[in-house]
Amino acid sequence: MSKVRIGIAGATGYGGQELLRLAARHPNAQVTVAMASSTAEDTRSLPALTGVWSGEIAPLSIETLSQNTDAVFLALPETVSAKVLPLLSARGGRIFDLSGAFRLRDVTQRARWYPDTPELDFPVAYGLTERCRESIAQAPIVACPGCYPTAALLALEPLAIGGLIEGDVVIDAKSGVSGAGKKPSERTHFSECHGSVAAYGVFAHRHTAEIEQELSRQVTFVPHLVPLDRGLLTTIYTRVRSSTTEKEIHSLYLEAYGNAPFVRLRGNRLPEIKHVVHTNFCDIGWTLDTTGGRLVLVSCLDNLVKGAAGQAIQNFNIAFGFDEQAGLV
Amino acid sequence: MSKVRIGIAGATGYGGQELLRLAARHPNAQVTVAMASSTAEDTRSLPALTGVWSGEIAPLSIETLSQNTDAVFLALPETVSAKVLPLLSARGGRIFDLSGAFRLRDVTQRARWYPDTPELDFPVAYGLTERCRESIAQAPIVACPGCYPTAALLALEPLAIGGLIEGDVVIDAKSGVSGAGKKPSERTHFSECHGSVAAYGVFAHRHTAEIEQELSRQVTFVPHLVPLDRGLLTTIYTRVRSSTTEKEIHSLYLEAYGNAPFVRLRGNRLPEIKHVVHTNFCDIGWTLDTTGGRLVLVSCLDNLVKGAAGQAIQNFNIAFGFDEQAGLV
Amino acid sequence: MSKVRIGIAGATGYGGQELLRLAARHPNAQVTVAMASSTAEDTRSLPALTGVWSGEIAPLSIETLSQNTDAVFLALPETVSAKVLPLLSARGGRIFDLSGAFRLRDVTQRARWYPDTPELDFPVAYGLTERCRESIAQAPIVACPGCYPTAALLALEPLAIGGLIEGDVVIDAKSGVSGAGKKPSERTHFSECHGSVAAYGVFAHRHTAEIEQELSRQVTFVPHLVPLDRGLLTTIYTRVRSSTTEKEIHSLYLEAYGNAPFVRLRGNRLPEIKHVVHTNFCDIGWTLDTTGGRLVLVSCLDNLVKGAAGQAIQNFNIAFGFDEQAGLV
Amino acid sequence: MSKVRIGIAGATGYGGQELLRLAARHPNAQVTVAMASSTAEDTRSLPALTGVWSGEIAPLSIETLSQNTDAVFLALPETVSAKVLPLLSARGGRIFDLSGAFRLRDVTQRARWYPDTPELDFPVAYGLTERCRESIAQAPIVACPGCYPTAALLALEPLAIGGLIEGDVVIDAKSGVSGAGKKPSERTHFSECHGSVAAYGVFAHRHTAEIEQELSRQVTFVPHLVPLDRGLLTTIYTRVRSSTTEKEIHSLYLEAYGNAPFVRLRGNRLPEIKHVVHTNFCDIGWTLDTTGGRLVLVSCLDNLVKGAAGQAIQNFNIAFGFDEQAGLV
Repeated sequence: MSKVRIGIAGATGYGGQELLRLAARHPNAQVTVAMASSTAEDTRSLPALTGVWSGEIAPLSIETLSQNTDAVFLALPETVSAKVLPLLSARGGRIFDLSGAFRLRDVTQRARWYPDTPELDFPVAYGLTERCRESIAQAPIVACPGCYPTAALLALEPLAIGGLIEGDVVIDAKSGVSGAGKKPSERTHFSECHGSVAAYGVFAHRHTAEIEQELSRQVTFVPHLVPLDRGLLTTIYTRVRSSTTEKEIHSLYLEAYGNAPFVRLRGNRLPEIKHVVHTNFCDIGWTLDTTGGRLVLVSCLDNLVKGAAGQAIQNFNIAFGFDEQAGLV
Repeated sequence: MSKVRIGIAGATGYGGQELLRLAARHPNAQVTVAMASSTAEDTRSLPALTGVWSGEIAPLSIETLSQNTDAVFLALPETVSAKVLPLLSARGGRIFDLSGAFRLRDVTQRARWYPDTPELDFPVAYGLTERCRESIAQAPIVACPGCYPTAALLALEPLAIGGLIEGDVVIDAKSGVSGAGKKPSERTHFSECHGSVAAYGVFAHRHTAEIEQELSRQVTFVPHLVPLDRGLLTTIYTRVRSSTTEKEIHSLYLEAYGNAPFVRLRGNRLPEIKHVVHTNFCDIGWTLDTTGGRLVLVSCLDNLVKGAAGQAIQNFNIAFGFDEQAGLV
Repeated sequence: MSKVRIGIAGATGYGGQELLRLAARHPNAQVTVAMASSTAEDTRSLPALTGVWSGEIAPLSIETLSQNTDAVFLALPETVSAKVLPLLSARGGRIFDLSGAFRLRDVTQRARWYPDTPELDFPVAYGLTERCRESIAQAPIVACPGCYPTAALLALEPLAIGGLIEGDVVIDAKSGVSGAGKKPSERTHFSECHGSVAAYGVFAHRHTAEIEQELSRQVTFVPHLVPLDRGLLTTIYTRVRSSTTEKEIHSLYLEAYGNAPFVRLRGNRLPEIKHVVHTNFCDIGWTLDTTGGRLVLVSCLDNLVKGAAGQAIQNFNIAFGFDEQAGLV
Repeated sequence: MSKVRIGIAGATGYGGQELLRLAARHPNAQVTVAMASSTAEDTRSLPALTGVWSGEIAPLSIETLSQNTDAVFLALPETVSAKVLPLLSARGGRIFDLSGAFRLRDVTQRARWYPDTPELDFPVAYGLTERCRESIAQAPIVACPGCYPTAALLALEPLAIGGLIEGDVVIDAKSGVSGAGKKPSERTHFSECHGSVAAYGVFAHRHTAEIEQELSRQVTFVPHLVPLDRGLLTTIYTRVRSSTTEKEIHSLYLEAYGNAPFVRLRGNRLPEIKHVVHTNFCDIGWTLDTTGGRLVLVSCLDNLVKGAAGQAIQNFNIAFGFDEQAGLV
């Protein structure tokens, strides 16, 4: 069987390089085009990928992308995605967008957080693989959620859908610094991050809107930068009906993820970042205060794999009818 | 004026070494005795302190401690403190205990978390300096709180006393690994901690009882190990009366800490660990969701200084009538 | 074609887990047995490998290992390998030993550094893949070099064989802490390693003997622990004939590694650890002082992959006639 | 006695902030002026120094600097120092320059590495405190060496002056990232440095010229960035006369540093970065191959203290006749 021709735009960022690495060893795909994030960058090679992928990174070109691929991954800044995706989708082919540009459905919220994003003429599936398999299989465009929403939603959705949540939902997220991208800044300068922890974006982070959209519920979400490169852990605090038992919680998660190859249920053995980095796993654990109904959830994943490139490939596998794990183990 | 003679028991641990380092440069104190945590250890020197303190670490001896000092700092495991402190206090002299052994006042809680701790014949002051100056000045024994309670209580007490808290209190703490002590273990093995974050002790950490005792209120406290050596940051989530204004919050903190030299109020510029390590400062910031009454507090400190040795010295300064900042700047 | 049945002894250590991870996705191999490092450990699972390999870790048993496998990987402490390997080799089957026990050929040196190692009745190939392909293909036993010798020898051998080296050879190696193994110790305690660098084993490291054996030349080798988990970089200082040109150096390396899929030649763009972690690559760069004949080489690799498990799999591929890259990309 | 009035130019960089921190607690000094590195920056405060120093950072002004101070510390980029220092020195007052601009005496070398540096009409002392006390005491200008030369020269000078060195001198230095300054760049981006080690500037680092000037001997110097914030360790390889004994080495160092409060001799217990960070100590250790004359030296220091601000204060103490340790313990 001939391989699906894949194009990657934004292949020089951390998420884009991870995509290239995963796609290069995918048994059913062939990377035919890899491009930078703008039309102005010179063609160049990526030293880290010598021996993994032999091509070169070309300047961004919608025409080339469209003509030489069956599926395109956009790992672009959201303002660039907002412009490129509509043009590309008009030319056909499957698109997997890793930016936030097309994830919010509410017009007001989208205008607030992603003002450059236009209305689209095509349906967009929200790409949280384990929760949205059917729409991912059919939609021409998949808006893949980033690391924060993926970790929070995989942990919270079974409870929310099960109607168990009673009370506030607090999501305290600890993220590795690669989540902030490749562009140097004071915030991501080594000497500022090393040996430090910092909260940011309190009550003002656009991923809050995305999480609230999917849960249909207000949440308090506070992200933190912690001094590690890859990986993200969320600690989630809420209350459930006071009669809830550990067994009910466990059953709910088993039902949700019993057949999901990339969600590992850890129960009371709370997950740690170390066990998920460089994999497509999301590990989920929980502890219930059985006398008071307080529930603490912990979920973690690699922000560049399950939180970005890996989940995009997983969605690609579903969209094209391949084994969900192809290229990811 | 002759200097106060100081003894340190447990001087080889991380907190003990920090005590020795601070005490060695204190203008009003002289370290006359520094001891290990047991009677069985050989006399030895501490390479890191060459040129800072010229003495040697002797085996633990209550008699020697008592005879040669005016004040004793106990940086011992809590089960050792539980035995040593009663014997030592019977001989007179001021005692500053850095363990948890004598911090809980409720008999049931103490029996649960510190079963080795006996009743004492002497009054014990809780040593959260900024909140307990008067009792610290008078009590023969000061039970100095550790890093977690110090960071949580300094941030929460003004709100609790002001009667503003309405709803659950969630304390999500991120601690450097030196907080786990000097003894090697799988949990503190470099390759297990580096690049990872892990929650532990959910609904089962004895510091929860201590924080609840001081606040007279239930809290959900979840500590995490983050991959840095020194420093601790807590993110605290609660709700206040919905009419509360930013100005009220600010006034409350100003009133509480306006004259406290080691508490720095950061307002909406949330504090970071980097700015407090190797200092005795506790930095506190906050963000109020003015439409909904949600409040996020962030506090941070160096777990070995303000969270251990520094606060003990600060209490010593108050107990002996010295400038509160002596030896700490 | 049926898959080769693989057994791993010592599968719970860092090198052993990496072997299990790589072997589990090898297209031509099937892990039939994975064992602990001693007969006394209980059967248990490895949480990090949930979803990757579904088996359990059994206690060490030579009989079970021998009966159920075509090839065995020993990731054992060298004193255990010294006992297990002779018994196992007597029962047939290919053996890939990751310990140092059988790497030294000189009887005196072996008695000094590996006193438990007996004489063997079977030939042992030194398993530096790129330099020893032929003997690896034929020998029943392959003694795979560890991370330090692999990084040093891949960089130095082409020069040594080319007869270019004139003068002292200094190898300054910087290793991640996972190279020191999984057992907690003061040396590998997080708070001792974080933010620090330490040299050790000066003039007294057994890998010196191994490097000297392969180079037939004295070297000064000083390993350092640096605060990272995986990865190793060596900076090598020597002098070459003063007429040597950059082009000659480049040609020498091209000749040696032009067809080696896992050695990447970087020339004057010196390699960095970041680009090789979680891969089987060894990157090599060099800078020549063209006026004075001084040469600085830099090589790096992932100590658990090319420096341990990956190279063992690479040798397995050669021994069984598979594609050298099978399971490694 | 009235305090010496101190000015700091370049107080916002890492070295400058450390200077401010140390000067603020110096018993004989008072910081009257702290300035940015350019005339264009707005007046601002430094959050990390709240409670330590209450002033504000003003724009750079030579006139203000000169009029309000008895001594000025320049923690400026070398091209700025090259312009500011001549103007300032013409107005009198003691100057301690932390840049490299005025460290090289040879006109050719200076023109190569510091082309902006003019000839001065005033004598400049090289500020390696332990080796140059007399000239530091007298010269109006002290050019303080940076972290690399300080660590290398303190270790090598006693051997060089003693005439023991025979053969090549290789200096392999491992530096924390704060040594690269506060300006964000790809090289110092957290995700590029974390988990990595990289060599740079081989045969092309201007500190080589400085080390060679002081030793009157060629050296091979290769600096590396290691993933830690503060601290620097050098491993130095050379040969000594083959009859040299450990005792001779020890005597040489004792003679050189027996009375130096900030050099700690460690002998065969090789120093580690952990023991010197946040102190003004330089620790030196050595291992002699007694049969072959090979010698390995290890020295380490905090790059921002003994390698920058601390040594500048130490020189200030000597220049003004204060206790050498004033403000530094």
